[in-house]
Amino acid sequence: MKYALAVDIGATNTRVGIGNSDGELLQIESFKTWDFQDPLKYVEHIARVANGILKSFNVEVVGMGVGSPGPLDIKKGEIINAPNMPFKKLELVKLLKEFTGLRVAFANDAVTAVVGERYWGEGSKHENIVYVTISTGIGGGVYVDGSLLLGKDGNAHEIGHLVVDSRERLTCGCGKKGHWEAYSSGSGIPRFARFLAEVEREKIEGSVLKDRKDLDAPLIFEAYRKGDPLALLVISEVRRLNAYGFAAIVNYYDPEIITVGGSVALNNVDILLNNIRGEVEKYAINRVPDIKPTKLGQNIGIAGALALGLGLEPKIPLR
Amino acid sequence: MKYALAVDIGATNTRVGIGNSDGELLQIESFKTWDFQDPLKYVEHIARVANGILKSFNVEVVGMGVGSPGPLDIKKGEIINAPNMPFKKLELVKLLKEFTGLRVAFANDAVTAVVGERYWGEGSKHENIVYVTISTGIGGGVYVDGSLLLGKDGNAHEIGHLVVDSRERLTCGCGKKGHWEAYSSGSGIPRFARFLAEVEREKIEGSVLKDRKDLDAPLIFEAYRKGDPLALLVISEVRRLNAYGFAAIVNYYDPEIITVGGSVALNNVDILLNNIRGEVEKYAINRVPDIKPTKLGQNIGIAGALALGLGLEPKIPLR
Repeated sequence: MKYALAVDIGATNTRVGIGNSDGELLQIESFKTWDFQDPLKYVEHIARVANGILKSFNVEVVGMGVGSPGPLDIKKGEIINAPNMPFKKLELVKLLKEFTGLRVAFANDAVTAVVGERYWGEGSKHENIVYVTISTGIGGGVYVDGSLLLGKDGNAHEIGHLVVDSRERLTCGCGKKGHWEAYSSGSGIPRFARFLAEVEREKIEGSVLKDRKDLDAPLIFEAYRKGDPLALLVISEVRRLNAYGFAAIVNYYDPEIITVGGSVALNNVDILLNNIRGEVEKYAINRVPDIKPTKLGQNIGIAGALALGLGLEPKIPLR
Repeated sequence: MKYALAVDIGATNTRVGIGNSDGELLQIESFKTWDFQDPLKYVEHIARVANGILKSFNVEVVGMGVGSPGPLDIKKGEIINAPNMPFKKLELVKLLKEFTGLRVAFANDAVTAVVGERYWGEGSKHENIVYVTISTGIGGGVYVDGSLLLGKDGNAHEIGHLVVDSRERLTCGCGKKGHWEAYSSGSGIPRFARFLAEVEREKIEGSVLKDRKDLDAPLIFEAYRKGDPLALLVISEVRRLNAYGFAAIVNYYDPEIITVGGSVALNNVDILLNNIRGEVEKYAINRVPDIKPTKLGQNIGIAGALALGLGLEPKIPLR
């Protein structure tokens, strides 16, 4: 049995764990990413938690796998200008190697997640897999013909930044207009609801949501379940735009399976994923595969980091 | 020096040629695809032309490469229901092997073209290439990280069937709504012009195009050059939708270069491709690469078939 450390960096929580070559995560520690404003102290804390775990388990580890929100400079092993992170720049790989003495494999969080799917989830059965995360943003990771897609800068998976609205009504966090993420993500849905509340006043009479200042995605899904007219309007639009996005994935990558994770999707499988296949068939030319929630759930990212730490993915080696 | 036969099947013309391992096409014969309604007689004619060429050159050939419009059943080596072809079904590989005694490698026409780009064009310098054809339809072929993308059914390149119009105003030849090809291809542009002529009457006053029954893409581009208001309107919309499509390509495949071919693009490089990069940057999150006409021109398909016939592409072997 081999062991590795796994680090799942998130804009909210950072999780550090240990696991084995059966894909079992044996222990996971979590702390708030924003407790650390100083990049050096942040990496020191990751290393401290990792070294504590190592001491308590007293096993040899192959290495450490790390998934992080982008944009990343994969070659240098750095986080650069990640929009929701406390630091502008973080020389993550260099510092982690220094503080732990371990070899480190490092990738974008959605890429790390699809590596998790490949090695511990649906990937045992399939050579062509797309993983889609719908959380604060929308991201993806892709295997085609058994090979992890990277592209010239390692970004051949920026599926959330597809233009899905040719009226270009909303601007994405990245600054560009009409992107899927601007309408259908955890941050996008409330903004889309506020926009529709403004322009479709007659359609949303009686909505209890329309004047709320604290509108967020969970509130909108809750109101949808109760039949609120604004929630019904925004979610039906979101489902249509999701069908455009999934159809693009089907046409561009021709996957055997699409798995979906991220809190927005996993908390609302009944609304967002049930029967989505029929909607996607309206817009895709290729044969539409199963689209279903990942069995790895919220652990998919750290499970992928474990696979990276074990050195399983040849395109993202330990170094 | 090695030699191979190359067959480029088109909805209009079928071309049969011979070339060598320097990528030189030494002779090309062409005939009208629609001269043959019977599939057997069509393949017999290809074989007759091929055997004639072989006799006159008197060299040993490695095999025969064939590119064809889809949909194809790659595994069986068949053309199935290709919308613009005279036959419903064609057991192409089986019959060609029988009639020529050669090994055959067979692929979709846009995939064959990107194989041409990879082995005889920009591919000598790049590992990440997308080739886009804008002709009767819009298709593509993709290399990511040096590997030809195929996907579960060999269709990981159906770029023309992206939803680019969330108003879903036009229906594509494939039956689905809002697809890029329905607006921006050689068959789409005149339909889009007729649609806009109907709904934007006040904007196109004075257009010499608006009542023409024989509207086609060349006529519209010619009128654009003369400042016709309907042509200006439709082409400016086409350019914006093209920017959405190219941005999707950049975000989904992260290529180092995009080359473009097909008669609509190659005859109107000044209008469709010059300065397109700036438009694409408005919508792409990834770094936008050069987007330029293929240097292989109208020969890209048969050049790709030559590469296949020489057995150069490991994902599409001779068999």
